[in-house]
Amino acid sequence: MPARTLYLCVVDPGVGGERSALAIEADGDWYVGPDNGLLALVTRHAGKARVLRVDWRPEVLSSSFHGRDLFAPVAAMLCNGKVPRCTEIAKATLIGNDWPSQLAKVVYVDRYGNLITGMQASDLAKDSRARVGGREIAYAHTFCSVPPGQAFWYENAFGLVELAINQGNAHHTLGLGLGDRVELSRYSS
Amino acid sequence: MPARTLYLCVVDPGVGGERSALAIEADGDWYVGPDNGLLALVTRHAGKARVLRVDWRPEVLSSSFHGRDLFAPVAAMLCNGKVPRCTEIAKATLIGNDWPSQLAKVVYVDRYGNLITGMQASDLAKDSRARVGGREIAYAHTFCSVPPGQAFWYENAFGLVELAINQGNAHHTLGLGLGDRVELSRYSS
Amino acid sequence: MPARTLYLCVVDPGVGGERSALAIEADGDWYVGPDNGLLALVTRHAGKARVLRVDWRPEVLSSSFHGRDLFAPVAAMLCNGKVPRCTEIAKATLIGNDWPSQLAKVVYVDRYGNLITGMQASDLAKDSRARVGGREIAYAHTFCSVPPGQAFWYENAFGLVELAINQGNAHHTLGLGLGDRVELSRYSS
Repeated sequence: MPARTLYLCVVDPGVGGERSALAIEADGDWYVGPDNGLLALVTRHAGKARVLRVDWRPEVLSSSFHGRDLFAPVAAMLCNGKVPRCTEIAKATLIGNDWPSQLAKVVYVDRYGNLITGMQASDLAKDSRARVGGREIAYAHTFCSVPPGQAFWYENAFGLVELAINQGNAHHTLGLGLGDRVELSRYSS
Repeated sequence: MPARTLYLCVVDPGVGGERSALAIEADGDWYVGPDNGLLALVTRHAGKARVLRVDWRPEVLSSSFHGRDLFAPVAAMLCNGKVPRCTEIAKATLIGNDWPSQLAKVVYVDRYGNLITGMQASDLAKDSRARVGGREIAYAHTFCSVPPGQAFWYENAFGLVELAINQGNAHHTLGLGLGDRVELSRYSS
Repeated sequence: MPARTLYLCVVDPGVGGERSALAIEADGDWYVGPDNGLLALVTRHAGKARVLRVDWRPEVLSSSFHGRDLFAPVAAMLCNGKVPRCTEIAKATLIGNDWPSQLAKVVYVDRYGNLITGMQASDLAKDSRARVGGREIAYAHTFCSVPPGQAFWYENAFGLVELAINQGNAHHTLGLGLGDRVELSRYSS
């Protein structure tokens, strides 16, 4: 993304409840979204971050669609150079501030059944193997590096460890889904 | 939506058949779509509405994609300030003119399994209960007002009664789907 | 689409492998995508086509998201009137150059379960019947030309033969899916 981008991010199971709304200025970009852990890594990775709790509220606020009613107007204000009524708060008070930077679990299953983990691939040796159920899964550079139907792990386009099957569905074939643990280690058992 | 918006709406199981095409000017907005009930409520709720049957046809008209071939060009003409060849017709002749404004049924199941009904929530007391199968379901303000897994009804972001389960799938869990009846009443049985 | 359009097309199971990247100028339009058959028909149908193999590579290239890293920047360069580093190659060397123009198979199942084939409908008489399993399926002009639940074939909005069921799911009901053969002939058996 170009410099000076505003990211409006809404994954918000607590919508309508007590969680705060945030506007974070980090290294020249803005991030707008709920205070539920979604944006905590942004402040951790940023060289310079200013965390604002958004106190502004619209006249009409539905109980379940703050993306439309609250966050989008805040994003529009910021894009127009106006900062809505806010209170600056400390990074350390953010939900998720104490969460790990890496998570050895499946954090997302895409619509092809690829299993995206919360582990950065750059930290791992290429001869590491993923242990899943009783199986060990080796690294490959990309999908077409292995025969159709074969499982592999690779560094995906976000830099994360992903388990996939060339022209197949890793979610169904490996029986692995959201939140399931994935261990990678260098030496096979 | 801002004033003077054009809404291009195509839900059109009768595409390619005898149903008319409509362009409706209602309180300064335009609505373009098929005459199959989709736009009847617009004329009912509008202070001032002018209903036009679109007689214009493109040179090439597929039998199944009037959104592309007919309605989109009509919308583009109207956005450019040109009204295509039309005949003004009476509101009362619209398909759906005699349909009810409220419908005590599931009218949409979203991709999370939330069950959206055709009932306006503002008409109901908050101590009303939804009767579904043998169960009674109470009101809650929003998802996180109830424990994970609990069913509730609430006023959704469109102002309609919606049945949902916090972090769950109401469609699967309640066994309720499109067209199923949902009764709400104030006193439990 | 208007004249002088750029089409960025990425269906790319070989991403990260040996397949080339293409930029094709055909009758004033540009087509950007992988050399895997996706764009071969473009050169066959064009009056005048120039086929370029894209030799330019970005500084950072992921192994699985060339749509983002390679093809989109190439498209942006072309839109800005700059041709990236390329080598002109012969049409005949394209993958898919020897593939048939028509394919009597299901090539796509849409989300309604409609079965789109690779056959052009204009080549067929309207009294042709599709043979699927033991059944014969007759032509209809469009969905609402037949009763709900009835299967038919018709010329879809792309000009292709499509098998569908009015208000139903042909994929499930006919038990037919991607790659399955569909034969059409004029005389019933």
